[in-house]
Order: sequence, then C-alpha cells, then structure tokens
Amino acid sequence: MNTGVVLNIDPLLRITALTGGVGGAKLIVGLAALLPAEQLLVVANTGDDFEHLGLRICPDLDSVMYALGGVADQQRGWGRADESWQCMASLSEFGAEDWFSLGDRDLATHLIRTQALKAGMSLTALTQQLLAKLNVAHAVVPMSEAPVKTMLETERGELGFQHYFVRERCEPAVKRVHIEGIKDAEPAPAIEQFHRLPGRHATVICPSNPYLSVDPILQVPGLHASLAGAPIIAVSPIIGGSAVKGPAAKLMRELGADVSSVGIAQHYQGVINALVIDHQDAGQANAIAALGIEPVICATLMRSNEDKEQLAMTVIDTAERLLDARQY
Amino acid sequence: MNTGVVLNIDPLLRITALTGGVGGAKLIVGLAALLPAEQLLVVANTGDDFEHLGLRICPDLDSVMYALGGVADQQRGWGRADESWQCMASLSEFGAEDWFSLGDRDLATHLIRTQALKAGMSLTALTQQLLAKLNVAHAVVPMSEAPVKTMLETERGELGFQHYFVRERCEPAVKRVHIEGIKDAEPAPAIEQFHRLPGRHATVICPSNPYLSVDPILQVPGLHASLAGAPIIAVSPIIGGSAVKGPAAKLMRELGADVSSVGIAQHYQGVINALVIDHQDAGQANAIAALGIEPVICATLMRSNEDKEQLAMTVIDTAERLLDARQY
Repeated sequence: MNTGVVLNIDPLLRITALTGGVGGAKLIVGLAALLPAEQLLVVANTGDDFEHLGLRICPDLDSVMYALGGVADQQRGWGRADESWQCMASLSEFGAEDWFSLGDRDLATHLIRTQALKAGMSLTALTQQLLAKLNVAHAVVPMSEAPVKTMLETERGELGFQHYFVRERCEPAVKRVHIEGIKDAEPAPAIEQFHRLPGRHATVICPSNPYLSVDPILQVPGLHASLAGAPIIAVSPIIGGSAVKGPAAKLMRELGADVSSVGIAQHYQGVINALVIDHQDAGQANAIAALGIEPVICATLMRSNEDKEQLAMTVIDTAERLLDARQY
Repeated sequence: MNTGVVLNIDPLLRITALTGGVGGAKLIVGLAALLPAEQLLVVANTGDDFEHLGLRICPDLDSVMYALGGVADQQRGWGRADESWQCMASLSEFGAEDWFSLGDRDLATHLIRTQALKAGMSLTALTQQLLAKLNVAHAVVPMSEAPVKTMLETERGELGFQHYFVRERCEPAVKRVHIEGIKDAEPAPAIEQFHRLPGRHATVICPSNPYLSVDPILQVPGLHASLAGAPIIAVSPIIGGSAVKGPAAKLMRELGADVSSVGIAQHYQGVINALVIDHQDAGQANAIAALGIEPVICATLMRSNEDKEQLAMTVIDTAERLLDARQY
C-alpha cells in the first residue's frame, strides 16, 4: 500500500506535525511511512518532561522516537518492547521512588540524554542522534529547548504532569492547566528552519490530548505565529464521546468542555482550518462547520499500521486540498 | 560454627578493617559473621570511584555492600546476583560508552547514590542507608568523603583506575601509581568516631591489592596516624607467588617488588605488626620475621563461607594475642 500511495503526494508538500505521546505517535508513524524525511517535521510536546532520580525524562519525545524506530511496546502502549524491570525492582528494594516505571532498556535513553544535556548538547541534536541509531531518518524535535512544565491545579493541590498522570493515575479533578516557564520559552530553532524551506507548508495536530499535549506546543511564544499562513488540520482524539486512551475525556468534562469532536473544534477554534473526525461522529459535522472549521470524516481509530497510513493519507489529502484552494 | 566461635571473642575488641573490593570483601564477610556491628568498622577504598554516564560509581564500597547483603554474584566475582544487562544492550545500540558493565540491578545503586550526593547527603550516610535496606547492621564507610582518584602512569600514558582495570584489562605496564586529590582528603568522620569508642582497638588490612586498594586508604592524611598505637594485621593477597585474583602480581613485578608474601611484608614494613600468609608460603616466615613483622601461617584462600570465617578467626586471634602482649 505504502509505495502506491507515496507516488500521489506532492513532493513540495511539507508537514509540521504537532504531537504528544502514544496516540499522536501512531499518526506520526503513518505520516513517516508516506512522507520522506525532508517533507515531515515532528514537533513533540515537552511539557510532560521531568527530572526523576536525577534523570531527564522526555516521555512524548521518547514515545515518538520508539514508535518510529519500531522498538515501542505495542501491548503496553508505552515504553520499549522486550523491556525488563530489574532496576525498578532494586530501586524498590532500596526504598527509592518507584511510582514512575523505568524499564531497563528505556533507562539507557535517559542516561545518555541526561549526560548529553549536562555536557551542553541541545535536546534537538541529542534526539536526532538517538533517532539515527534507531535508523530513523525523520526529524523529531522538542517544541522548545527551554524547560517548561505542565502543571495541573487539582482538588488535591497543584501537581506536575507525571505526578498527576502516573502517580495519581489522573484521579484528582482538574480545575486549571498552566504551563510553567512557557513565557520564557522559544520554539526549537529547527522548527523555524523547517518553515523557511521552500514548498507548500501545512500543519497537522495529532490526536493527542488538547490541554496536556497540544496546548503546551501552541503556547510556546512565536510557535503558533510561525505556523500561520498555512492550513492547520487537527485529528480529533475523541471518538463517540470518549477518548481512545488517556484522560482527555475526563479532563474536558472537568474543565467544562463538551466531550465530543464539537468540543475539540471549539477548543481549537481560531487555530485550525479542518478537523478530522471519526465516522461515529459524522452527526457532529454541521456543528463543526458552523464554527468555521471544515469537518473531514473517516476512520480515525488506529489499530494496525494500515490504519495509521490510511488516516495519514486522509490528513495529507486534506492539506493538499486546502492548499490547492489557495485560501492560505 | 559461627555461634561457637563468637563466644570466645573479647566483647571489648574493636576491629577497623581496611579493604578494597572483591578479595577484601570475602574477609569482611567472615569478620562480620564473627563480630557484632559495634565491634567492626569497614573502611573501603574509594580511589577506584569514578563518574560514568553521569553516575557516581563506587566499585569497592558496592562490592563490600553486596557481599554483606548476600546479593553479590558468586560466580562472576563482582556485581549483583540475578543480574541482567538490558540497559547495557541499549547503551550499545545507541553507541554510548559500553566498556564498563553496568547491570540493571546494580544501576539502581548508582542512580540513588548520584542523586543523594547531589542533594548534599554524605557518601557515608547514603551507604549506611543502602546497607540497612539490605538488612546489614555493620558499618561500611568510605575512606574519605573527598573525591580522590587512583591514577596509573603506564606505558600507554596516564590512566584512571577503571580505564586501566576494565577498559584496558590491566594490560599496560605500570610505572607509578599516584592518588590524585589525596592531599586534600580527610578521613571520613565515622573512622575517627569509631576509634574514640572505648575498647581494645586493632586494624586489619584485607587481602586486597596493596598499591591500588590499600595504599589509597593509608595515604588519606591523618588516617594512618589515627590507627597508630593499635596493632595492624595484614592478610597477604599473594599465595605461592601469584595473586588470587586481579593484577596485584603483575603490578608488583612491574613496580620492581618481589611477587611473594615477603614482597607484601616489605611493602607494608613500618605499617603492620603481623602478616597472615598461606601454608604454601610458610617457607617465607623467617624472611618476614626478619623485617620485624610477625608471620602468621594458616589457609588464606577463601572459597566457602567457612573459609572466610576461619581466616577472620585467625586474624581476630592474632589481634587479641598482640593486644594481650601489650606492645601497643
């Protein structure tokens, strides 16, 4: 399927894909299967990054990297395949913090990254170096080199992302989300460089959590502005009133949003030009169109690699169609 | 055997045992089986410590800790039992430094230690905390809290200990050994505190490498002086002209020493009062006595726990006999 499809894609098309971790990474795999490296830039959320046991951990960057490298665990949905947990067992034995699962293989990534950053290497350069070792040619860059922190004001007080997501298992109701340090952040230089490349540019917002994965990227000062003038297509992470994975639906409810693709369209109103929604939500198309956003209906649940490429093709088709209409 | 023997040991005897890694750790296990916690202080060499992949690694402290905790690998001779190497495999995959084998379980120790030291905890306190988690009551302390570095001037240039020992497999001929930073080091406070405890004090130098494991300890300014006035008994690491394990024999040869227990006695002349040697070397007893050092002959090869306790008993007996003779 792959080869046949690629031939139809405009070689001048350039896609900037904004993504969180697991769900977004699936679409990234589809996009990378269809687009050569020079036509795709993956921008990953780093608001979830944190320092744990002295290590710099970048869950979303790593999820995308492992997915593209073909070393992600498919069953578990996060981390590496063929993983073991011997270091964790010893950490527990010694009474160290063990609420955040660090696989033995995964640890190598964090050790290398922590040391490289300490030695002054950029997160962008380090990620590219690791990707190369996994034989991935596509570029995956952090939204910013600056450390920012997604913080959740909850009924149990303010929590960092991983403390909310992993330690508290998303249980506390969320009142507000804010991104610490975002005002001082700048987009990673590679993003601007990619946008300056000649070609027809479009942006894809992957089916990641809008509040926790995409908003931090869009809030990096100057990043959204650098996307303007080119169409932005989002894929809804909500299917039939619930999230495929993760706390998106619960969070939308707590923050007073409509848990539906219409709610997603409302959230991204003024930012996106089209929203890809699942067949199940076809009935919401008119309400989405009424917000000035073009609804695109297809199958959005990605189980197989074929699903991923099919959805990526729909997104690419939409981008080309919007570019052809010259509204941008 | 254990219980029967303990009853004969003077409850006022206090042993300070100076040790390197694997070989010394065996005698430490024997001493700890015979002496209650308040009668034994283990002082481990930290000249082999190094920073690797951003982690603070203390090979000798860990060898002793794992041996006392009953979690040391018996076959391999270093590291932890039931170890796996998944993180190492991923480090290699990513092209990171992989010449120093870090087991997945062992990694937990280094992660915890690196973070604790960075947070301002002393190496002494951290080691004691880890030992407690392994249900070890005995105190094992670093020779000093200060970072010192055993450096080897070799035919291939100057090498840090681990680079010589592990990466270069002890192959380059050694011209000189010196301990970087030793002049600014002070004995770990716990050593002085132990010596101030009432009782009859004696010191044991374990069958570790004299140049690479014991000299760094003895060279910590003030440490040797604090042992003076009490008998010092060494156990020879040389049996029948060769070292039980490691590069001691090769190193003695390269440094112009006699590879024998007499050579060990010459090295420690002026420091020790008695040298425990193996039956195989009984013929060297007179030459050792001629140096003003009492030779003590017994079986010094430690294969079983019984061997370790037997040798520990000989050392303790010798200490008590020397103390009874009131020459100190």
